[in-house]
Amino acid sequence: MEKIKQLQRDFADFMAQTDFGGQPTELYDPIAYTILQSGKRLRPMLCLLANDMFGGDEKQALWPALALETFHNFTLIHDDIMDKAPLRRGMATVYQKWNSDIAILSGDAMLAMAFQFALKPEKGGELAKQLGKVAIEICEGQQMDLNFETLGNVTIDEYLEMIRLKTAVLLATALQMGATVAGASATDIQHLYDFGINLGMSFQLQDDILDLYSDVATFGKRHGGDIADNKKTYLYLKALELASDKDRKRLEHLFTLRMDHDEEEKIEEVEAIYGRLHVKEAVEKVMLDYDRKAFEELKAVGLPEEQKNHLKVYAELLSGRKK
Amino acid sequence: MEKIKQLQRDFADFMAQTDFGGQPTELYDPIAYTILQSGKRLRPMLCLLANDMFGGDEKQALWPALALETFHNFTLIHDDIMDKAPLRRGMATVYQKWNSDIAILSGDAMLAMAFQFALKPEKGGELAKQLGKVAIEICEGQQMDLNFETLGNVTIDEYLEMIRLKTAVLLATALQMGATVAGASATDIQHLYDFGINLGMSFQLQDDILDLYSDVATFGKRHGGDIADNKKTYLYLKALELASDKDRKRLEHLFTLRMDHDEEEKIEEVEAIYGRLHVKEAVEKVMLDYDRKAFEELKAVGLPEEQKNHLKVYAELLSGRKK
Repeated sequence: MEKIKQLQRDFADFMAQTDFGGQPTELYDPIAYTILQSGKRLRPMLCLLANDMFGGDEKQALWPALALETFHNFTLIHDDIMDKAPLRRGMATVYQKWNSDIAILSGDAMLAMAFQFALKPEKGGELAKQLGKVAIEICEGQQMDLNFETLGNVTIDEYLEMIRLKTAVLLATALQMGATVAGASATDIQHLYDFGINLGMSFQLQDDILDLYSDVATFGKRHGGDIADNKKTYLYLKALELASDKDRKRLEHLFTLRMDHDEEEKIEEVEAIYGRLHVKEAVEKVMLDYDRKAFEELKAVGLPEEQKNHLKVYAELLSGRKK
Repeated sequence: MEKIKQLQRDFADFMAQTDFGGQPTELYDPIAYTILQSGKRLRPMLCLLANDMFGGDEKQALWPALALETFHNFTLIHDDIMDKAPLRRGMATVYQKWNSDIAILSGDAMLAMAFQFALKPEKGGELAKQLGKVAIEICEGQQMDLNFETLGNVTIDEYLEMIRLKTAVLLATALQMGATVAGASATDIQHLYDFGINLGMSFQLQDDILDLYSDVATFGKRHGGDIADNKKTYLYLKALELASDKDRKRLEHLFTLRMDHDEEEKIEEVEAIYGRLHVKEAVEKVMLDYDRKAFEELKAVGLPEEQKNHLKVYAELLSGRKK
C-alpha cells in the first residue's frame, strides 16, 4: 500500500508541475478545469505500477501516465457533449459551463497534447503508436454505444465488443505503456495487456451490476439509473436471453418508456423480472470469469510473484475484493 | 510542371491504396466521404515537394503527406460543426449529412489516424511531435477566430496572429515535415518553415481580397460573402484604421446587420467605403510584403537554386502569379 500511495503522490505532484495554461484562455481554461479535478487517476496508476513492476525509471513513466490521463479526460469532454450530460464528478460539464464549440476544440487540443506527452520519453514513438491505436478503438466503442441507443437488437457479443473497445482497451494500453517504458519483453507486455482487457471487462460488468444492486451512498450514483435511461447493459441483454416470451415482451416495452412514466415503478418492475430470472447471479458468473482470466494473465508474466504484488493489490482494491 | 503532376499522381495513388474503411460504418463512412473528395491536396504537395527538393525518399514522405491531409480534413469536419456550414466543396458537410455526434467522433478518429500515419517513417517520432505542435496551434487559431465573432475590438495584430495559427502554420509544418523526412539540416528546415509561414499569410490575405475583388466564376465563392457574414477580415480592420470617424461608425454599424437586411445593398455600401479608403491597395501591399519575405526565405535555403524550382513554381501557381 505504501508504494501505491507514493506513486499516487508522485503523479499528483507531476500534474501540479505541468502547465495546462495558455492563450486564448477560452481554449485552455476548460482543459485545466477538467484535468485538475480530482479523479481516481486509474489509468496513470496502472501505467506507473506496470513500469515499477519491471524496475523501470519512474521519471520516464510519468509522461505516458500524463498522456493517458489527458487522453481519458479528452474522451470525457467529447462524450459529455454526445450524452448531453449536465454533470461530471459533481461539477458542470465543459459544454454546459462554456459551450459545445469550446468543448469540441478543448477536447481536440487535449488529444493532441496527449500525443505530445506520450512522445517525451526515449521510447516516445512506440508509446504514441499505442496511444493512436487505442484512440481509434475508443472512437469505435463510443460509436457502437451511440448505435445501441437506437438499435432494436443488440446481441451479448456486440455488447461485450463495445465495452472492450470503450473501456477495457484503455486499461490494457495503460499497462502496456508502463511495461514498454520499462523495457519489458513483448511476451510479458502481451500478458499484461490481456490482464488489462479482462480486468476492464470485469470492471464494466461490475458497474452494470452496481447500478441496481449496490448501496447508493457508497456507489454514489442513483439506483437503477441504467434502467431509467433504457441503457442496454449486460443485465438487460442477459435477461432477454433468459426470459419467457411474455417477460421478454414486457422488458422490451419497459425499455422504450421515457421520463414521463413513473420511474420508480418501472425500476421496481424490471428488478422483479431480473430477480425471477436470477440475472444478477448470471452476470456475476461472467464477471468472475473475466476476473479469473485476468489474474491468470498476470500470473503468466515472467517475474517473481512478489514483484507483481503492488499491481495485484491495486487491482483487487479496485475490484472491491479487498477493503 | 512534370514533377508536380507526377507527385500529384503519386499521392492520389497512395490515397487510393489506403483503406479508410472499418467498423462501425457510422464512424468510418464519414471519414472516407471527407478525405476521398477531390481537393487541391495543397499540404501533401508542399510536403512531397520539400522532400523531393532535398533528394529524400518519396516512399517515406508519402506518410507525412497522408498525415497532413487526414489532419486537415479532421479540422474541416470539426470547423463545419462550429461554423454551422451546410456545404463543403459543394457537398453536404458531415454533421449535416449524418449528425454532430458522428462528426465529432469521426473527426476525433481522423486526428488519431493522422498521428498513426505520421509515425510510420523512420523519423516518425519527430514528425508526430511536429504534428502535435501544429494541431494545438490550429486549435488556438480556431478559438481566436470564434472569439472574434463576438469581440467588439479586434486589432490588426490579433487578426494576423489568428491567420498565422489557423492557416500559415500548417503550410509551414507541411514543408518542415517533408524536409525532416529527407534529412535536411535544422537551418534549412527553419528557412523552409518560415517560407511556409509567409506564404500562408500571403495566401490568406489574398483570400480576403478575392472575397470582394474577383471574378466570382473563377474564385467559386459568392461575391462579398465575408461582408454578408460580418467577418472581420484584414480588409475590414484596415478600413477601420484608415477611416474617418463617420465612416468608421457607419462600417461598424453595417457589420452588425444580419440576414434580414438587404445584403446586396450592404455589400455595395461597404465596397464604396473600401474604395474611397483605397483599402484593397493597402492590403495588397501587406500581402506582397509577405510574399517577398517568403521567397527570401526560400532563397536562404542552402541548395542550388535550380533544385528549388519545382517548389517555387508550385508556390507561384498557387499565389496566382503564374497561370
